[in-house]
Amino acid sequence: MLIVLKPGATEDQKRSLVATAEGGGFRVHPVPDSSRRLIVTSERRAPDPAAFIAQPGVADARRTSHGYELASREVHPGGSVVQVGGVPVGGPGFVIISGPCAVESREQTLAVARQVRAAGAHILRGGAFKPRTSPYSFQGLGEDGLKILAEAREQTGLPVITEALDVEHVEMVAEYADAIQIGSRNMHNFPLLKRAGRAHKPVMLKRGFAATLEELLMAAEYILAEGNSDVMLCERGIRAFSDFSRNTLDLSVVPAAKALTHLPIIVDPSHAAGRRDLVAPLARAAAAVGADGVMVEVQDDPDSALCDSTQALTPRLFAALVADVGRVAASVDRPLLSRQSPRA
Amino acid sequence: MLIVLKPGATEDQKRSLVATAEGGGFRVHPVPDSSRRLIVTSERRAPDPAAFIAQPGVADARRTSHGYELASREVHPGGSVVQVGGVPVGGPGFVIISGPCAVESREQTLAVARQVRAAGAHILRGGAFKPRTSPYSFQGLGEDGLKILAEAREQTGLPVITEALDVEHVEMVAEYADAIQIGSRNMHNFPLLKRAGRAHKPVMLKRGFAATLEELLMAAEYILAEGNSDVMLCERGIRAFSDFSRNTLDLSVVPAAKALTHLPIIVDPSHAAGRRDLVAPLARAAAAVGADGVMVEVQDDPDSALCDSTQALTPRLFAALVADVGRVAASVDRPLLSRQSPRA
Amino acid sequence: MLIVLKPGATEDQKRSLVATAEGGGFRVHPVPDSSRRLIVTSERRAPDPAAFIAQPGVADARRTSHGYELASREVHPGGSVVQVGGVPVGGPGFVIISGPCAVESREQTLAVARQVRAAGAHILRGGAFKPRTSPYSFQGLGEDGLKILAEAREQTGLPVITEALDVEHVEMVAEYADAIQIGSRNMHNFPLLKRAGRAHKPVMLKRGFAATLEELLMAAEYILAEGNSDVMLCERGIRAFSDFSRNTLDLSVVPAAKALTHLPIIVDPSHAAGRRDLVAPLARAAAAVGADGVMVEVQDDPDSALCDSTQALTPRLFAALVADVGRVAASVDRPLLSRQSPRA
Amino acid sequence: MLIVLKPGATEDQKRSLVATAEGGGFRVHPVPDSSRRLIVTSERRAPDPAAFIAQPGVADARRTSHGYELASREVHPGGSVVQVGGVPVGGPGFVIISGPCAVESREQTLAVARQVRAAGAHILRGGAFKPRTSPYSFQGLGEDGLKILAEAREQTGLPVITEALDVEHVEMVAEYADAIQIGSRNMHNFPLLKRAGRAHKPVMLKRGFAATLEELLMAAEYILAEGNSDVMLCERGIRAFSDFSRNTLDLSVVPAAKALTHLPIIVDPSHAAGRRDLVAPLARAAAAVGADGVMVEVQDDPDSALCDSTQALTPRLFAALVADVGRVAASVDRPLLSRQSPRA
Repeated sequence: MLIVLKPGATEDQKRSLVATAEGGGFRVHPVPDSSRRLIVTSERRAPDPAAFIAQPGVADARRTSHGYELASREVHPGGSVVQVGGVPVGGPGFVIISGPCAVESREQTLAVARQVRAAGAHILRGGAFKPRTSPYSFQGLGEDGLKILAEAREQTGLPVITEALDVEHVEMVAEYADAIQIGSRNMHNFPLLKRAGRAHKPVMLKRGFAATLEELLMAAEYILAEGNSDVMLCERGIRAFSDFSRNTLDLSVVPAAKALTHLPIIVDPSHAAGRRDLVAPLARAAAAVGADGVMVEVQDDPDSALCDSTQALTPRLFAALVADVGRVAASVDRPLLSRQSPRA
Repeated sequence: MLIVLKPGATEDQKRSLVATAEGGGFRVHPVPDSSRRLIVTSERRAPDPAAFIAQPGVADARRTSHGYELASREVHPGGSVVQVGGVPVGGPGFVIISGPCAVESREQTLAVARQVRAAGAHILRGGAFKPRTSPYSFQGLGEDGLKILAEAREQTGLPVITEALDVEHVEMVAEYADAIQIGSRNMHNFPLLKRAGRAHKPVMLKRGFAATLEELLMAAEYILAEGNSDVMLCERGIRAFSDFSRNTLDLSVVPAAKALTHLPIIVDPSHAAGRRDLVAPLARAAAAVGADGVMVEVQDDPDSALCDSTQALTPRLFAALVADVGRVAASVDRPLLSRQSPRA
Repeated sequence: MLIVLKPGATEDQKRSLVATAEGGGFRVHPVPDSSRRLIVTSERRAPDPAAFIAQPGVADARRTSHGYELASREVHPGGSVVQVGGVPVGGPGFVIISGPCAVESREQTLAVARQVRAAGAHILRGGAFKPRTSPYSFQGLGEDGLKILAEAREQTGLPVITEALDVEHVEMVAEYADAIQIGSRNMHNFPLLKRAGRAHKPVMLKRGFAATLEELLMAAEYILAEGNSDVMLCERGIRAFSDFSRNTLDLSVVPAAKALTHLPIIVDPSHAAGRRDLVAPLARAAAAVGADGVMVEVQDDPDSALCDSTQALTPRLFAALVADVGRVAASVDRPLLSRQSPRA
Repeated sequence: MLIVLKPGATEDQKRSLVATAEGGGFRVHPVPDSSRRLIVTSERRAPDPAAFIAQPGVADARRTSHGYELASREVHPGGSVVQVGGVPVGGPGFVIISGPCAVESREQTLAVARQVRAAGAHILRGGAFKPRTSPYSFQGLGEDGLKILAEAREQTGLPVITEALDVEHVEMVAEYADAIQIGSRNMHNFPLLKRAGRAHKPVMLKRGFAATLEELLMAAEYILAEGNSDVMLCERGIRAFSDFSRNTLDLSVVPAAKALTHLPIIVDPSHAAGRRDLVAPLARAAAAVGADGVMVEVQDDPDSALCDSTQALTPRLFAALVADVGRVAASVDRPLLSRQSPRA
């Protein structure tokens, strides 16, 4: 239920309203960027607007049409801008996130970081904790990997986004990185979502590869409901029957999400395609369809990478992609974000 | 099997080779635009290159890697350009195909034709024979609809593409229209494909909504193998689990197809999305990903249309789409095809 | 719209009702096995019950809840029994349909026919017209194949079911065979469905591999609406992302279909699985889930078959399957149909 | 890599072999139920059989064909039997697991437990921690729920299986329950899998709703590789395009899994179907296809349940299901497990 306060509602009236709701067994969530809106939710029964509409200071009380109250554009009509280490995601500039699939070594990571920085990336990505289908595959360098990423940030000035696989590691990732990635395999890992909702860093939530849009927004709601309002979505392909790409990149989800939610949305063509030659065309399409940015894997020497080697671009191909995506982004009035004076 | 003739091979040598192959129970197909290449196929057993390589005039004989010999880029490395009533599809200009879902009346069709012409469409589409899920839904006007489309071409100068549902109607459609559409429900209707392969008009083959790329190319091969080399592909969405679009537009298929085949490929965002607001973003994405054109439904008064009313654009929205797609297409060096002096 | 006549309604009242409906631009369909029910349909606008309910002889007139009026259990609560050359499908006995994928030769077909007859099959299947992904694959023997099938019937007494791919061949197939199969690739081939609806033989309609249940019932409705009330459905697997079977056999569709329609439903585990070892377990499951029969491919020497060799059972494996399926079928009170004195 | 020791290999030889492998950076896993087999794995590079085959006591050293070494039937040809609180899963008797979706209260849980016990269930299920799409839905009673389940076990003698959502709760669930369930949304939650691999209770791993069989077996391998050899698989439906069931139950996976792995496999028709009337037919089919048991939801008063009310059976319907499934199971020589003298 959404409660809208009157323009002149007092803090006392607001406190009294919250007390009434909590006394009735409900939870009350403030709406980001609006001191005059409150969301009231319950696990057991829907709150009744009639019980609130007559209270002092209340302008309106009504059921919202979705279960994702905080993610909904209905209660937050403007688009949100999420700051990742000073880089605005969801603002007027199109954002490029890039880096290696996994942090394999200090040398590899620093080299790629410098290369993607030089080619125009705004944010550095790289996995220190890797979700791998096989328990016998390389699982990432863990905290050592996070330290390498932090060093890469020092050298390049690029903010860092990296994945947390586990509740226990959210804090550690938040300490080293500028944003926390929740991977597609964890979109329904509710304890992890809740923990990320209590972290003090932005979260990028990747769509599960068989998740509906409603499920994605509900997963975002788990994070938002814990108080973290800096959530970005990411489309990375769904599982269908394709015989030519690893997953099927679902670009329709971008305008569909924009209609329902105020959260920014990034597109990851690398994991969707699983093959190098499709990445640039799909990144261009992501810019054209209205995404807020793309996330692309780059390796210095893709063929010797420990994971996902078939999809990583070389630095040279990545530079061409940035140029191409920049032209498309400009053609839809969403030019590449201009980089402010970098630290490095 | 592909046979490449020597530069100086004589017509006699070629005839002798064909006779040998046919005597062995094989079929021989000429390769479009290349008098020096032959494809040899068989239903029962693969032809053996060793039996041909030593013959006079033969430079090379080898198995090709795919079953779609004639559709393959391997035997026809350059992209094909298909002429639809004078409009080149697959050339340097990006093509816009538009019109109503169904031809419902003369007035409606002529009005929409003029509107899409004014907004910049290059080719007019409209269904005279409609494949409908229910036998009790409007099935199209049949030959009367074809006559209306022909009149619309007279008035606007736009070539016409329309669907043939049935072997019996291929000839009739070919008589009135400039190109024959094979719908996604008929991608595996092999008698229809073969019949279209003997028509003297270009064919646009829509991907079945659960077809792999290999199956699409094999279906194209059915048409090509009958001697019609003017085939265009069309992506219109696959069936997945989406809760926000009717089907899932699979834009990855565009660059994947371009890697395997020389045939042009068009994207139909209207049927994939099934909702109006997704059409323009997806059309922009189609231009960015490298398609040769888009096909978009327009209705004068969408809400009163007899079919697919939720996805048709108004003429005003369509004009905006053409402008937007034009900018994106230009940004990838594939500007909108400039219209030559129209007949009307 | 469904019209129910009063018990004492006269033929004159009925004729007058039909005349009124047809005069209003509607089509009137008799309901199989019920002289007191009529279905009234329209392509352009839904008929209004109020215009019929007050007419003489009418007990009730109301909109039905589905678009598939004639297929619906709502208007025909009992299950239908379809006679295929004297073999009842949909009755108390579970039916086994078997034979080779394709009729490749007289010897092969007669041998397999005798073997499946000996093992307990009730109906012989075999393709004379084959839908093949590649135009260069074996396409079937055509009318020669139909003659071989007819000879096999003479020798074994088994009725024959075989596929018609094309409107032109429906008549020919109906002449030689006891039932006409519409393959999954043609479930949306509406001209073929309509033509089969005018044939005087039962039709087995296979579910398209991306078709919903509603679409399957609507496709059946196309056949029924032309006057052929002998329609059987067939589940043969849907296209999903499986890494272990060619398609995904969707057995849930059996009880779901039974809830909505009176038509019998057969399960084809061979095409769904695409591998020999899954066929018998899935055939047992089909009997347990409530199907009316199974259709299973058998080859004398599977490894030399011209199509689908990986899924065909040997006669020995098929005999074991019949015994196993028989036990399961009996356990759900649906024992194998006992074979009446065969002709051979 | 699989190492097979000679029949007379000494413990010293075995220790020396392990030391060599670990010295080379590899991990060594004992094979359950076989003191003469060792699995050697590595994250970074595949171990080389040549380096081991010549060592004392080694009979054979070879690469295995899959990545799931411990789950593979190749290294453990017999099927495994997992003991859940004294109930053998995977043995000659077919197992029925039943109970409410969620533990909502002590009264509800004890009542349902007694009812499913009376109807013939072997194991009690019920969720204390619930994975819910919406953060505002009922999330379960947590430890209080576990205590209620333990009390239900005391009263009925039925062992208990319940889900752990979170690494932190694995220990707690293992303390109260006889088996730990990993839900389909967590099939790729690798930290949770690893933690369950260190628990001293059996684990039932549900297939993710878009997981391939290989991914399921790899997820099981995560548990097995940590030393817990008591793993059961569970099929609960995949996400496809169905318009009549919530998910699509994929029964083909049962025989396909049996061919690849020695682990038992259970089928959950309730979550797959999402509607009550399909549960019994699908449970019968699961018995016929060769599953080791079924898991079925029962509620005393389904319509007032806090979750998944549309799919829960009433106790009366469940009793009928047990009788029906029993007949089918007996028909495939896999009769219902006879209950030993229960504790209550």
